[in-house]
Amino acid sequence: MIRAAVLGATGYAGAELVRLLAGHPQVTLTLLTSRQYTGTRFDRVYPSLRGFTDLMCETLSTDVIYQKADVVFTALPHKIPMSIVPDLIANDKKVVDLSADFRFKDQAVYEAHYQTHQAGPLLDEAVYGLCEVYREKIRSAKLVGNPGCYPTSALLPLIPLIKNKLIDADSIIIDSKSGVSGAGRSLSLTAHYCNVNGSFKAYKVAAHRHNPEIEAILSDVAGQSIQVTFTPHLVPMTRGMLTTIYTGLNAGVSQKRIQSSLIEAYAKEPFIRLDADHQLPDTLHVKGTNICDIGFKIDRRCNRLILISAIDNLGKGAAGQAVQNMNLMCGLKETTGLDAVPRPL
Amino acid sequence: MIRAAVLGATGYAGAELVRLLAGHPQVTLTLLTSRQYTGTRFDRVYPSLRGFTDLMCETLSTDVIYQKADVVFTALPHKIPMSIVPDLIANDKKVVDLSADFRFKDQAVYEAHYQTHQAGPLLDEAVYGLCEVYREKIRSAKLVGNPGCYPTSALLPLIPLIKNKLIDADSIIIDSKSGVSGAGRSLSLTAHYCNVNGSFKAYKVAAHRHNPEIEAILSDVAGQSIQVTFTPHLVPMTRGMLTTIYTGLNAGVSQKRIQSSLIEAYAKEPFIRLDADHQLPDTLHVKGTNICDIGFKIDRRCNRLILISAIDNLGKGAAGQAVQNMNLMCGLKETTGLDAVPRPL
Amino acid sequence: MIRAAVLGATGYAGAELVRLLAGHPQVTLTLLTSRQYTGTRFDRVYPSLRGFTDLMCETLSTDVIYQKADVVFTALPHKIPMSIVPDLIANDKKVVDLSADFRFKDQAVYEAHYQTHQAGPLLDEAVYGLCEVYREKIRSAKLVGNPGCYPTSALLPLIPLIKNKLIDADSIIIDSKSGVSGAGRSLSLTAHYCNVNGSFKAYKVAAHRHNPEIEAILSDVAGQSIQVTFTPHLVPMTRGMLTTIYTGLNAGVSQKRIQSSLIEAYAKEPFIRLDADHQLPDTLHVKGTNICDIGFKIDRRCNRLILISAIDNLGKGAAGQAVQNMNLMCGLKETTGLDAVPRPL
Amino acid sequence: MIRAAVLGATGYAGAELVRLLAGHPQVTLTLLTSRQYTGTRFDRVYPSLRGFTDLMCETLSTDVIYQKADVVFTALPHKIPMSIVPDLIANDKKVVDLSADFRFKDQAVYEAHYQTHQAGPLLDEAVYGLCEVYREKIRSAKLVGNPGCYPTSALLPLIPLIKNKLIDADSIIIDSKSGVSGAGRSLSLTAHYCNVNGSFKAYKVAAHRHNPEIEAILSDVAGQSIQVTFTPHLVPMTRGMLTTIYTGLNAGVSQKRIQSSLIEAYAKEPFIRLDADHQLPDTLHVKGTNICDIGFKIDRRCNRLILISAIDNLGKGAAGQAVQNMNLMCGLKETTGLDAVPRPL
Repeated sequence: MIRAAVLGATGYAGAELVRLLAGHPQVTLTLLTSRQYTGTRFDRVYPSLRGFTDLMCETLSTDVIYQKADVVFTALPHKIPMSIVPDLIANDKKVVDLSADFRFKDQAVYEAHYQTHQAGPLLDEAVYGLCEVYREKIRSAKLVGNPGCYPTSALLPLIPLIKNKLIDADSIIIDSKSGVSGAGRSLSLTAHYCNVNGSFKAYKVAAHRHNPEIEAILSDVAGQSIQVTFTPHLVPMTRGMLTTIYTGLNAGVSQKRIQSSLIEAYAKEPFIRLDADHQLPDTLHVKGTNICDIGFKIDRRCNRLILISAIDNLGKGAAGQAVQNMNLMCGLKETTGLDAVPRPL
Repeated sequence: MIRAAVLGATGYAGAELVRLLAGHPQVTLTLLTSRQYTGTRFDRVYPSLRGFTDLMCETLSTDVIYQKADVVFTALPHKIPMSIVPDLIANDKKVVDLSADFRFKDQAVYEAHYQTHQAGPLLDEAVYGLCEVYREKIRSAKLVGNPGCYPTSALLPLIPLIKNKLIDADSIIIDSKSGVSGAGRSLSLTAHYCNVNGSFKAYKVAAHRHNPEIEAILSDVAGQSIQVTFTPHLVPMTRGMLTTIYTGLNAGVSQKRIQSSLIEAYAKEPFIRLDADHQLPDTLHVKGTNICDIGFKIDRRCNRLILISAIDNLGKGAAGQAVQNMNLMCGLKETTGLDAVPRPL
Repeated sequence: MIRAAVLGATGYAGAELVRLLAGHPQVTLTLLTSRQYTGTRFDRVYPSLRGFTDLMCETLSTDVIYQKADVVFTALPHKIPMSIVPDLIANDKKVVDLSADFRFKDQAVYEAHYQTHQAGPLLDEAVYGLCEVYREKIRSAKLVGNPGCYPTSALLPLIPLIKNKLIDADSIIIDSKSGVSGAGRSLSLTAHYCNVNGSFKAYKVAAHRHNPEIEAILSDVAGQSIQVTFTPHLVPMTRGMLTTIYTGLNAGVSQKRIQSSLIEAYAKEPFIRLDADHQLPDTLHVKGTNICDIGFKIDRRCNRLILISAIDNLGKGAAGQAVQNMNLMCGLKETTGLDAVPRPL
Repeated sequence: MIRAAVLGATGYAGAELVRLLAGHPQVTLTLLTSRQYTGTRFDRVYPSLRGFTDLMCETLSTDVIYQKADVVFTALPHKIPMSIVPDLIANDKKVVDLSADFRFKDQAVYEAHYQTHQAGPLLDEAVYGLCEVYREKIRSAKLVGNPGCYPTSALLPLIPLIKNKLIDADSIIIDSKSGVSGAGRSLSLTAHYCNVNGSFKAYKVAAHRHNPEIEAILSDVAGQSIQVTFTPHLVPMTRGMLTTIYTGLNAGVSQKRIQSSLIEAYAKEPFIRLDADHQLPDTLHVKGTNICDIGFKIDRRCNRLILISAIDNLGKGAAGQAVQNMNLMCGLKETTGLDAVPRPL
């Protein structure tokens, strides 16, 4: 059994990790840390898990991690992981970092949008954990930078089309809509029920930190610099993310070509479902799962492609993909612990 | 007092009309019709209005309308209005039609997206009831085609910029998000609570009938043919519509120029609120009102403008604007009956 | 025009007061105070009110109140009102206090559930602002203790039956359900969207401070000591409160007798709607209003009466009733500013 | 592997059964029937299950059932099961019926609240599938009448206290609150999103068919006739049920005695969680599970016990318990296929 630690276990991504790992047949959860809840049983913070884990929340100590864990999930605010991950790696732990600290290859880009990086040398070694795209690198990685939720939802539909040069890379517009759990468990007016209920709004328009993350990966895949316009919105629901992408089609690209490109890339992927001519993606269909549903339409009159993806922001957008990464890093079957049948409603 | 009839009073737009007209200081509601609820008191269908109207729902009869009403609101499914509106007009009634039947100047466009038009000659006479844009024509109109909710939300922010040639008319992408009341009161799985709750999805992508309506008005205003890409989405909330518009900026257009253009167009408008540098529009801020909030951001790196508007789809998107049109047509102060203070939450 | 001040204007009850007073035809809002938002425009805190008030939030100063206001609404946490209300009354201001500070006649009861009372002598003078029950006293009152939301919803249906000795006063069980705005605008996990959405739960079972308030008024009305069991619950919605009351019927009491008792008490009340045999109360029907809907059923087999009431916790349960009290205290028509037509949905 | 058929697979209880059985390690789903969707793939009706079952919905035919299934779940409207279950039993199938047809021992009670029973002789043989109470009988049953959701939530907390004679059986009041999925997938205004959102209401007060079901089982357990007052309410959420029960305490019964009675009954039950002094039950904590959370408080002043239970109405209230019954009937470990870790949110 793989011994796993979740650092920052009482945040939403951390708690979803606890759920997935507590049910993972080849993992034993051995350590949960939480600054706010040190000394409190995890199931007192999340009573739905009563009977499924009796772990106490502990304070974060690398010594304890060294003893107790083989794999470490850091579900901590960015800046904290960079201060402890080097030691974890040096002590031969496998690390899946859910913060932004190890998602960027270019330290300058990270520093332009976050802060000074204190573990720059590790950026080279870290692998971007978008499993369907960087699978082989992930298998041998010691450190994975788990992708952001918005980037996951935007990159999966775009990458095959970018790779196959089917779309105009200068014309990409990404309009994303996220459930409120994406804003985290911290108290804020943004997450106050009375502010969310009946409210739909955009935020951080053309100024969200996931914008450079999307661009960095698209550029890497394309072999050329790509810039996109990105607008996130907040939806009155707990979980789920729908991303609508607009892009010009390159000359002569047919609907069939788009479809075959997506099929070629994803038909065998266990966590991607394509449905070109039937129902379009709906967040309700992927809630609680590690699945990404992808659909598209072409607006022929304007020669534009509309790509639509749906994920659970806490699933494929965070904890689910983190476990998928762990499975790859540890040589397990990729779907282990992630194959629960989705709820019909 | 103006005597008003609402035909199709038990649909959502109709019921919102009843609310507004029952509280309008210069209107007496004299007639409500409903096919489904003929013979039932209106306040049994909408118990919140108990004590505010004791009208019975009646069957639709033009003779009764002739006797009882000066102004007629037709909140009926398209196709029905075209069969009765000519008679109403011939009998000197003022008509605000909330269906699509009298929104198009070009009969062929209407017929391409709806069906054969049986009252084609009236299309010339009908005025498109976007009050802030066609105000003077509305004042003297006998027949107003009340705009669709999506077109209202998209046209108001776009029109001043189109008129001033600040944006690239070939690059317009409209990503709209609507509350569920937009789907109407008819029973359908689409509106079943368990299908809506936790669900966010696009529908009729690049195939919605409001698409040609938006294009017709934009083209009229621009004096050139304009085509747009339009994607509607469904948000798990009852009322509200947020529209995010992406468009390229023409060369040399500054943020200030956009702002001054919007200010020039709308600073004196009682139902439009601009907030360029502060809070972006939020459906919660316009719920239950006839207000349209407009904001914008510029993505300088991509030279794109992101325009955002928020309305209540049943307010400025339907019944509110219909009453505003009636006020104009009847020579009343434009805000009469529409000036209730919005709820803070 | 009556000059009105709202102290604690940025809490939910305060903001709803601002809405109602800004639309009140005989009131001018002259002063809003807020500890947290001193120096900020009120419409920046509640953007829905942009265009309807341009007042700044000020710090609380009795001197300023003396100059600016005739009537003062204290929408402050209990304990603060008792420290300033005596001065306001001494300076001839009329005060409607929305806290618990002046709801109790018996200082000992207040102190058992809140804290030491520093303005005990005023308790005698203060009138409990349940308008339908204490109307005449309210007309001449200088200080009104505005009822709690739960007490309002429970007392209105119970009082006529208690007065007429139709029910067993020892058997009263009150099961209440409140929207989340009742928990206030303060940040807490209780109000975090992700904790509320999909959640229904009881809280402070048999231990809520509104329990003694209900008992004090019931006992006053009955002329004997009455104790009740009271359980509040939290409903995933913003506004609204439904209260289900169970009580034994006294011997020989018929359905007709219950109905006639309610009709006798309330048929002429502008804000109470009875509907004995048709639709039962629903929070949706009273949202945003000052109305209390009341219905009932009898379980003959068990000889029990089930009374059901619906109010808006921020309306009749707080700000609406406060304005109704002001209308009475100032000799205005009781419905002034409270007669907006309710929304159909 | 057990071959299982779900009749009425596209209703909500049926679909939840499909989810649970598709993930059950010792079951193969072999047959799904649906009147409305005959000839349609199940995953087209419930797209979340795409990739998890490729079964077609078939028309209901006993011959096909005989061939394909060992265990049959009838998730059909009452009246239909009674017409086919006798044949299924005669052909040696094990049947878990989710309708009311086989929940009553007393045919007259069934007929008073439903209709003429056409399979009366089977009522004796059928076992009421409240697993924690009738476990031993269920193990050897061929036909289980799966309990209603409301009865499950009310009976589990009450039965140990009734058995131990700790509460006054004449004083039981059951106030239940259910998510909207309990109303089923059929189209109705009751389930229209705009009617549910912001709405909380009671329905079928003292007239719900689950009332006699609760009484029949309580009476059976008590060995005396028990009548209760029961009020169901509708909560704006998809899944979940909270039941608040009020009952008088028998003389001398202490808090400890209540607690020890519940512990004695349930401490070893895998699907019941007691939490006497900590957090009270919350529907959010049991969503998607087969768990029943139970808590209680005593109102000493009134000598009343307040019992609170939370279940998922589709889980322990329907499909979950049905699978638990199948496990017992088939000699499997009782928790098989029902032990997924609950989501934290």
